[in-house]
Amino acid sequence: MRTDPEALTGLLNWRARLLKLDGLSPVIGQDGALEWGTLADAPDDAELVFLGMEDGKACFAAVPANGAGGPAYADPAIWSAMRTLPPSDLATYGGARSLVDWHARHRFCARCGAATRLAKGGWQRDCPICEAQHFPRTDPVTIMLVEHDGQLLLGRQPRFPERMYSALAGFVEPGETIEEAVAREVHEEAGIRVNAVEYVASQPWPFPSQLMIGCYCTCDDPAITIDRTELDDARWFSREELEAARDAGHEGTAELIFPQRSAIAHNLVTWWLGR
Amino acid sequence: MRTDPEALTGLLNWRARLLKLDGLSPVIGQDGALEWGTLADAPDDAELVFLGMEDGKACFAAVPANGAGGPAYADPAIWSAMRTLPPSDLATYGGARSLVDWHARHRFCARCGAATRLAKGGWQRDCPICEAQHFPRTDPVTIMLVEHDGQLLLGRQPRFPERMYSALAGFVEPGETIEEAVAREVHEEAGIRVNAVEYVASQPWPFPSQLMIGCYCTCDDPAITIDRTELDDARWFSREELEAARDAGHEGTAELIFPQRSAIAHNLVTWWLGR
Ligand SMILES: [Zn+2]
Ligand SMILES: [Zn+2]
Repeated sequence: MRTDPEALTGLLNWRARLLKLDGLSPVIGQDGALEWGTLADAPDDAELVFLGMEDGKACFAAVPANGAGGPAYADPAIWSAMRTLPPSDLATYGGARSLVDWHARHRFCARCGAATRLAKGGWQRDCPICEAQHFPRTDPVTIMLVEHDGQLLLGRQPRFPERMYSALAGFVEPGETIEEAVAREVHEEAGIRVNAVEYVASQPWPFPSQLMIGCYCTCDDPAITIDRTELDDARWFSREELEAARDAGHEGTAELIFPQRSAIAHNLVTWWLGR
Repeated sequence: MRTDPEALTGLLNWRARLLKLDGLSPVIGQDGALEWGTLADAPDDAELVFLGMEDGKACFAAVPANGAGGPAYADPAIWSAMRTLPPSDLATYGGARSLVDWHARHRFCARCGAATRLAKGGWQRDCPICEAQHFPRTDPVTIMLVEHDGQLLLGRQPRFPERMYSALAGFVEPGETIEEAVAREVHEEAGIRVNAVEYVASQPWPFPSQLMIGCYCTCDDPAITIDRTELDDARWFSREELEAARDAGHEGTAELIFPQRSAIAHNLVTWWLGR
């Protein structure tokens, strides 16, 4: 569908649905689900991204005037949506947000500086001057459980809510394998050398456009040296501490808030607890 | 080092080494290794990317006038380098090429169109007008072995040399997991529905900047429907055919050239043959 301009144009009619967004934040109805409008709700000159078909209706989102200015963590509406939206709505919102944010932040050609145009339903931007094609980016990020003596290493980023700890994570750099990225990241952030790295699971994370690659490894020497430019704290947590925090829900225990349900760290720690 | 501008400036001296490049192609000496010069070999106004320290010497590469215009597959110098360079030189060249190519193709700010400046030794570009920071991108790509009844599914892209088949592959799209990307890609390109997907290994691939994520899966129905816009051909290969092609070296057998040694497809098929 994306590659057929005529088919796409044919979908732009009164039956089509438009995802309601407040800037980049979701608009949530009384029923706790995402709100949808019609194409008439979009500004006349809005660029439209095709999200796919649902119940025979074409779904679109309009590119907002501005992209994300800072980390999504700063926005309480996002945190709340992550906790309350049904999983399918969260996936729809995440994919849509990631795409419209990319368009809002990529209106010009990185190769020649000219203004570009949305193409292929929003899965591409074309430069009319140098003819470069630009594609939405997806950044691979490794996120890892490190185990030693039955305990897990978790860390606190400065921007995290109080008492929240999560798995260490970092972007895969050019020239690295996944396994090398995990080893480098744990060494840089916590001063720990890890043993063989094992892949566990992956998950997209749309703030702004990560592919989270979840891994597991062990280490021999548990001595932590924290990189204070990256982390406020990092420490070992026992199985009992983690289980108590998980069972305490999103308020957590006096020492730990378990990673939120929609984050891959939640699934990784839950996977480890269930082993 | 990258984040310390003074330390970086201190490295720009007569002792530093400059990787010799012919456009984006490697320059290979009589000894079969990469050739290096000094900073005096770089044009006066060249942007320099810091590659790291080796033997106590800082290593740089200069950003060429133009980035890659087409696929690296079209360049015989690349194919030859992939076969002959020692692995550590291939890694150095790959990382350097990926970075300088990104800089050459990203001289302008995608957010506002202004000219940007290289920063942090080449691991960033900064916009002096809107203050956006831009980072080299790494695109996650899934590449997968599909097995049925002791045979492997391999495909031929139109740009491949004759008789060369390799594992199917495709970019991870926004909103997908690795496993979903594998299943979608095999279905789109070959019309096959796969069972549970298993991660095997990863490898960076610098043409231009992929992270190849190697996976393995099986299928129940081996009927192939080829997407001719993506593939010239796709078929099942037996263990015997694959072993014969591997043993035949880079000339291959009458029906199959085994994926080249530097590609992850080589390692994946070799892994499968050794199981
Ligand atoms: Zn352009
Ligand atoms: Zn700018």
